[in-house]
Amino acid sequence: MKHITYIKDIATWKKEFSFSLPIKVRFSETDMFGHLNNTIPFTYFEEARIEFFKSKGFMQNWVRADHETIPVVADLQCDFVKQVFFDQKLKVYVKANSVGNSSVDLHYMGMDEKEEICFVGRGTMVQISKKNGKGVSWTEEMRSKLDCRSIVSS
Amino acid sequence: MKHITYIKDIATWKKEFSFSLPIKVRFSETDMFGHLNNTIPFTYFEEARIEFFKSKGFMQNWVRADHETIPVVADLQCDFVKQVFFDQKLKVYVKANSVGNSSVDLHYMGMDEKEEICFVGRGTMVQISKKNGKGVSWTEEMRSKLDCRSIVSS
Amino acid sequence: MKHITYIKDIATWKKEFSFSLPIKVRFSETDMFGHLNNTIPFTYFEEARIEFFKSKGFMQNWVRADHETIPVVADLQCDFVKQVFFDQKLKVYVKANSVGNSSVDLHYMGMDEKEEICFVGRGTMVQISKKNGKGVSWTEEMRSKLDCRSIVSS
Amino acid sequence: MKHITYIKDIATWKKEFSFSLPIKVRFSETDMFGHLNNTIPFTYFEEARIEFFKSKGFMQNWVRADHETIPVVADLQCDFVKQVFFDQKLKVYVKANSVGNSSVDLHYMGMDEKEEICFVGRGTMVQISKKNGKGVSWTEEMRSKLDCRSIVSS
Repeated sequence: MKHITYIKDIATWKKEFSFSLPIKVRFSETDMFGHLNNTIPFTYFEEARIEFFKSKGFMQNWVRADHETIPVVADLQCDFVKQVFFDQKLKVYVKANSVGNSSVDLHYMGMDEKEEICFVGRGTMVQISKKNGKGVSWTEEMRSKLDCRSIVSS
Repeated sequence: MKHITYIKDIATWKKEFSFSLPIKVRFSETDMFGHLNNTIPFTYFEEARIEFFKSKGFMQNWVRADHETIPVVADLQCDFVKQVFFDQKLKVYVKANSVGNSSVDLHYMGMDEKEEICFVGRGTMVQISKKNGKGVSWTEEMRSKLDCRSIVSS
Repeated sequence: MKHITYIKDIATWKKEFSFSLPIKVRFSETDMFGHLNNTIPFTYFEEARIEFFKSKGFMQNWVRADHETIPVVADLQCDFVKQVFFDQKLKVYVKANSVGNSSVDLHYMGMDEKEEICFVGRGTMVQISKKNGKGVSWTEEMRSKLDCRSIVSS
Repeated sequence: MKHITYIKDIATWKKEFSFSLPIKVRFSETDMFGHLNNTIPFTYFEEARIEFFKSKGFMQNWVRADHETIPVVADLQCDFVKQVFFDQKLKVYVKANSVGNSSVDLHYMGMDEKEEICFVGRGTMVQISKKNGKGVSWTEEMRSKLDCRSIVSS
C-alpha cells in the first residue's frame, strides 16, 4: 500500500480498530465506470461514525431538537486502495485516533470479505453550539468514552 | 409512447408546460448499467418543483424556520420513456395540473436536446402545518398563482 | 390509509408479501425538513428488488458483463403514508404482482418497527436485450420462479 | 481560515484558479441539521473536474466504451470552512496543482456569492489502463493542456 501521511505503521494502525459497521454496496452507488462511485465512502464514513457515536451514547443527544450541541465535520479525507464493486460486503471500521478539547480525529478503514483494505480515511469532528457555532468542550465522561489511544490538547 | 394513465392527450399535455429547469446529468447519477439511475429523475422533479414554487413566491416561506407550514410529498410517479446518459442536457418541465384545498397535483416532463421526451411523471404535494401535520388550505393568492388549468375541490 | 389505485384490498395485499430487506435510514438520506427525503424510498425499492431477484438467481446473470440481457425500470411510483425519520429501522417488502412476457409488475411496502406502513409503491421492470433494447421473454424457469399470484400476457 | 497543509499561501493559491463550475445547492443535498451534507462537496468536486477535463478535451475520450484508459481517483480530501445552506449559488473552482507521469493533483475551492470560501479540497487522479489497471502516462499534448504551475515526476 502506498504511503499515507496519517498512517505511521499500518500493522499497528489496523490493530487499533475494534468498532465496525457492516455495509453492502448498493446498485445506485455504482457509476458508469462499473465500480463504487468515489463519493460514496464518505457516506459510509458518516454511517460508521454515527454508529460509533451511538455506541458511546453521544448521537442520541445530538439528534434531539432541544439539545444544545451538534457535531460538525471539519475535514474529511479518503485514500482509495482497491476497487469496490456492486453487491460487495464491506466492514467499515472507525476509531478515535486523538481527542482535542472539543474535537476528535476519527480514522476509518473499509475492508472487504477477503480482509483486504479497500479504502482508508480520516477526518476531524467538532462538537459545536447550535446557538453561536463555537466549539463546546467534551465532558470528562465523553472524553473517557471516546477511549482514545492518545489525548492531545488542541 | 405507451399509454400513461395521467396523460389524456399527449399533444395537449405537452403544450400546457411553460416552466422548466435546465439540468445536466452528473457522473455520480449514472450506474453500472451505463445510464442515469432510475432514482435520479425524482431528484430532478424535486428541484424543478422547488424552482417552480420559488417562481410563485411560495418556497421562500416554506424554508423559513419560523414559518407555520411546509409542503410534503403525498405521492410520486415516473414513467421512463427513453434512456438518459451521462452529461446529457435536459429540460425538466413542471406544471400544476389541478389544485385541491391544500394540495396540488404537479406534472413533470423531462426532455432532451432533440426535444424528445425521456421521462414523464406526476405527484401530489400537500401544504401541511408543522405543528399538527394537517393540511392547510391555500390562500386565494396562492391558488391563483398556481395558475392551473382546472380547480377541483378535494 | 387513503385509497391507492394499485391496492384493491389492503389486508389481502399485505398478506401476499413474504420477501423483505431490512434497511436503516441513513443520516445523509434525511433533508432539512428533518425527515427522510422523498427520493430515497426509490433507492430502497431498488435494493429490495435486487435482493428479491438475487433470491431467485436472476441478478447474478444480469450483472455479468457478457450476459445478453439486463432489467430496466419502465415506471415507478410511491405513496407516502407515514413520515420516516433518521435511524429508523424499516423492512422493505417486495413481491411480483403480475408477470408479462418480458416484464414483471413489482409491488413494494415499507414498514416500521411498529409494523405500520410508511410507504407503498409499485413499478414495472422489463428484461431487455443489451444489443437492441427490445424486451426478451422470461424463460419458463424464470417465470415459475417469479412465483406470482397471477400471470397475464402483455 | 485554519491552516491547511496543501495550501501554502492562501492569496497566491486563490489567484491560480481560473476554471469554475456554477452549482446550486439542491434540497436533497441538505440533511436534518439544516445544511449541506458533508458528503456532497465531493460530488461537486467530481462535476467540476469533469467539466475541467472536458474543457481540455480529455473527458470525451474517457467515457467512450472503446477507449483504453479511464481516470480513477486515488485520494480525495475536503476542508469545510463555512456552512452551506439550501439554494445557495456556489462556484466550484478546480486547477491542476501538479502533474506526475500518469497522475494529476487537482485542487478545489468552493465559493459563495459573497466570494467567501465555503470549502477547499484536493485529490489525485490517475489515468489507468482498463485492461490491467496500471497507470498510463499522459501524452505530451495532455501534459501541456493540463497547464500546471509545476511539473514533477512521480
